[in-house]
Amino acid sequence: MRTRSLRMSLPQVGEFNLIQSLRRRYGQTGRAVLCGIGDDAAMVRASSAHALLITTDLVAEGIHFNLHTATFADIGYKAAVANLSDIAAMGGTPQYLLASVAVPRSCTASNIDDLYGGLMRACRPHGVELVGGDTSESKDGLFVSVTVTGCVEPGRALRRDGAKVGDLVYVTGTLGDSLAGLRILTRKGRRQRRTRGREGANPRYVKSLVDRHLHPTPRLQTGLLLAHDRLATAAIDISDGLSGDLAHVCRESGVGAEIEAAAVPLSDACRAYAVASGVDPIDWALRGGEDYELLFTVPPRNCSKLGRVSQRSTCRITRIGTIRPRAFGLRLRRQSGRVTQLADSSYQHFRAARTTPREAAWSS
Amino acid sequence: MRTRSLRMSLPQVGEFNLIQSLRRRYGQTGRAVLCGIGDDAAMVRASSAHALLITTDLVAEGIHFNLHTATFADIGYKAAVANLSDIAAMGGTPQYLLASVAVPRSCTASNIDDLYGGLMRACRPHGVELVGGDTSESKDGLFVSVTVTGCVEPGRALRRDGAKVGDLVYVTGTLGDSLAGLRILTRKGRRQRRTRGREGANPRYVKSLVDRHLHPTPRLQTGLLLAHDRLATAAIDISDGLSGDLAHVCRESGVGAEIEAAAVPLSDACRAYAVASGVDPIDWALRGGEDYELLFTVPPRNCSKLGRVSQRSTCRITRIGTIRPRAFGLRLRRQSGRVTQLADSSYQHFRAARTTPREAAWSS
Repeated sequence: MRTRSLRMSLPQVGEFNLIQSLRRRYGQTGRAVLCGIGDDAAMVRASSAHALLITTDLVAEGIHFNLHTATFADIGYKAAVANLSDIAAMGGTPQYLLASVAVPRSCTASNIDDLYGGLMRACRPHGVELVGGDTSESKDGLFVSVTVTGCVEPGRALRRDGAKVGDLVYVTGTLGDSLAGLRILTRKGRRQRRTRGREGANPRYVKSLVDRHLHPTPRLQTGLLLAHDRLATAAIDISDGLSGDLAHVCRESGVGAEIEAAAVPLSDACRAYAVASGVDPIDWALRGGEDYELLFTVPPRNCSKLGRVSQRSTCRITRIGTIRPRAFGLRLRRQSGRVTQLADSSYQHFRAARTTPREAAWSS
Repeated sequence: MRTRSLRMSLPQVGEFNLIQSLRRRYGQTGRAVLCGIGDDAAMVRASSAHALLITTDLVAEGIHFNLHTATFADIGYKAAVANLSDIAAMGGTPQYLLASVAVPRSCTASNIDDLYGGLMRACRPHGVELVGGDTSESKDGLFVSVTVTGCVEPGRALRRDGAKVGDLVYVTGTLGDSLAGLRILTRKGRRQRRTRGREGANPRYVKSLVDRHLHPTPRLQTGLLLAHDRLATAAIDISDGLSGDLAHVCRESGVGAEIEAAAVPLSDACRAYAVASGVDPIDWALRGGEDYELLFTVPPRNCSKLGRVSQRSTCRITRIGTIRPRAFGLRLRRQSGRVTQLADSSYQHFRAARTTPREAAWSS
């Protein structure tokens, strides 16, 4: 099996299988490693009371962004948020950031300054300090690789592998906004806006969706509240899309799940823009990555406590489904009552060409 | 000054000035940060007795390597060593590694497996565990960004900023080998071998130089010995070239230095290949980066202790010069007795086109 998969091309294998294969072959670790490859961040024991969290995410020009639709400051901001969000999904407190950038010669010093300005704009509200990095030339395209460290009490950390049958599935905020914002930013989106009804082009909606795409909010406060009160059995941040990220939690926890389409929280802006684009907004919520909301599971006994936490939280918290046995698989109950398999339609690197958010849009 | 430099192109500003500018603008940190931007690794207080070291380095196709002269395993190995060497230069113990890779679709799963195999080959002898990373598609070229964490006792850590006037300057191993190996690997090098004397093409020398280029050794044991016995006042790893890395130590410490050319340790292989190529091997030692040897400064009172450490060390340790007052600048005393300013001839990203090792060779 291993040998066969190694002979395959990357589009045949896909990102998630590749990561699983690397994890099996190289991810064996000792007892000090509490979480290795396969969670939002690595968690390693630092003392009897504290664990160190480490996460790294890179963004590549033409894949995650392009310079026609995002400024250097936007790119820096979002690269930082992708990592801060991983710390949020572990219930941790972020502390330090390092940024490695590979920059084409065509860029100016001012561009790089803007990029770092964006990184710091994301970090400052959370007291995260820039402590290092690397600066290199790139022959083609801008690459930004960010590492963030943080801390958490090991016993309170949120992991992907703790969901239990009967737990309720929740998400923060609203889903699909980032993909809608991306569509607006791309030429394809712009053409659609010209030819469709006015509703989708409502300037207030457009601004809000584009802002959600370029400047997502890492849900650090909610992650901390969940961890502090030990309310959640599992958590992940939605960076690939609800369907894919739910699949990660279910695989790691050895469970299935049922999601109620009608419960998935959608913003008015996303709903209006999707309708104007002739798309079911649920599809954007399921496959639209980069919302950087948290998806987490809560045992029924903690639901009333969660209600109180929800009042203290700066973002909306919505129940969208239930954890089922593994054999149940992942299913979506549509508003009509029809239940379908919930296919993983989220973004995955290397997948054979098809319309995925980042490929279709950011690379245009 | 700031505004003027921001308007400049990257080749005008140069890598080192860019980093200094980013450090001034974004590198202000609180008291828990013992070293931020400007040392080999960030050092942050973890407990009363320990500090966390974090370093990140990226390598880019066409800049640091190309796939005609290095295998995926070579690239992975060296990307890990660049980071392990930073931990060595701080006198620390490396612990965990995370790897972010951006990979063109043309690569196979086997290529990526080889890359990780190379990373792990560098890590295993030092007990460093792979705990996470990120895998992304790249539109053009392979990018590998590695983060390594480690630990050190803050009071024993080696920093760049502690060199004092009168300290003696030492290096581990031999210098210039990596650049010589790089020359052999490139077509330019191959052409020279064909047209020059046999000495340079001695197969044993060729193999040893190429191996030094592709598989450098991080000097972790020596770093630990220096830190443990508090022998060195400052240290850095030679990743840019002796002239540039010495300049970093002198700038951070506010001192000058005098280097004796005759004392710079050269391998027989490097010397022979340089002579056959019509080049002064000292020039390769001064500007050849990626030797990943340690450069460090030792007060005269510690020299006898260093002699004893040297006997326990797995690598040669050579005195090459003396720390002088800042006003002295950086000078090179040639064997003839002639003293010249020691210009920074080491590799620097973005510099206006000229023959620098990585540009001339790896990009060919």
